[in-house]
Amino acid sequence: MPELDDLLHANAQFAEGFGGGDLPAPPSRHLAVVTCMDARILPLSVFGLKIGDAHILRNAGGRVTDDVLRSLLVSSHILGTRAIAVVHHTECGMLTKSDAEIREAVRDGSGSDPGDLEFHAIADPEADLRADVKRIAESGLFPPEVDVRGFIYDVRDGRLREVVRG
Amino acid sequence: MPELDDLLHANAQFAEGFGGGDLPAPPSRHLAVVTCMDARILPLSVFGLKIGDAHILRNAGGRVTDDVLRSLLVSSHILGTRAIAVVHHTECGMLTKSDAEIREAVRDGSGSDPGDLEFHAIADPEADLRADVKRIAESGLFPPEVDVRGFIYDVRDGRLREVVRG
Repeated sequence: MPELDDLLHANAQFAEGFGGGDLPAPPSRHLAVVTCMDARILPLSVFGLKIGDAHILRNAGGRVTDDVLRSLLVSSHILGTRAIAVVHHTECGMLTKSDAEIREAVRDGSGSDPGDLEFHAIADPEADLRADVKRIAESGLFPPEVDVRGFIYDVRDGRLREVVRG
Repeated sequence: MPELDDLLHANAQFAEGFGGGDLPAPPSRHLAVVTCMDARILPLSVFGLKIGDAHILRNAGGRVTDDVLRSLLVSSHILGTRAIAVVHHTECGMLTKSDAEIREAVRDGSGSDPGDLEFHAIADPEADLRADVKRIAESGLFPPEVDVRGFIYDVRDGRLREVVRG
């Protein structure tokens, strides 16, 4: 069983030793990282970052959806970030199913139909990463000096590989 | 200047000592956490979690958008999660601006108009958190046993407060 109550107990312990309460909202390294929700990815550790350094955006696949676009626009125009790393990864759950298969799993598991909700399954890892970086780079909506690049993270050995520059 | 090259150097060091390469994709604690991209939030530490335990979803505000809904459906129906924590926080950047003000900042900073992109600024912290939890709980799209709750995290003292159960 999941244990949301246990999480509150764990938080009480965390709060007792908490020491990060004086940081400002804008990320000190002017960086935003977009990556997958996958439980095996620790974005700060992977990039050698610490609390206060970077915005971290995560969804299924690390895809650049409308939601990621609006969040990155807030990040850059309101909170001053100037570098964006889009990080997909090996063995991603979004590589194992098509949108049609995910839709069917939702129907089978809930009895309801998700309608026209897009699932953004990944068909071709490098091509889909390039498309995601391109969506940011070619939107015309970011400050011109923003640096955007795409990486693939290997969940087996912890290594990042740069695939594309926007 | 931002330093995406420096991040690759930091990653090489991380990978040398990497020891999490044998974990499976499904989160071991069957948990998904939705929270803000804010640089001051360390979701694993806040909840006493470790690598492999939970899906972590993050965007501007920790809002339950279409992107979060599709990611949570993948999380629960494909990867077996059964508890969802939606975590908003104090001093959020999304509390300081309206959608119209964010749209104006994008126009001023880029010379382009973001069109009908919604920014999901937060007008009323508790009401907007309740609406986000309700969107999940009342979608009818999740396995019936899924437990969903809403929390507000205080970035000054590290404490979570439960506000709503779905």
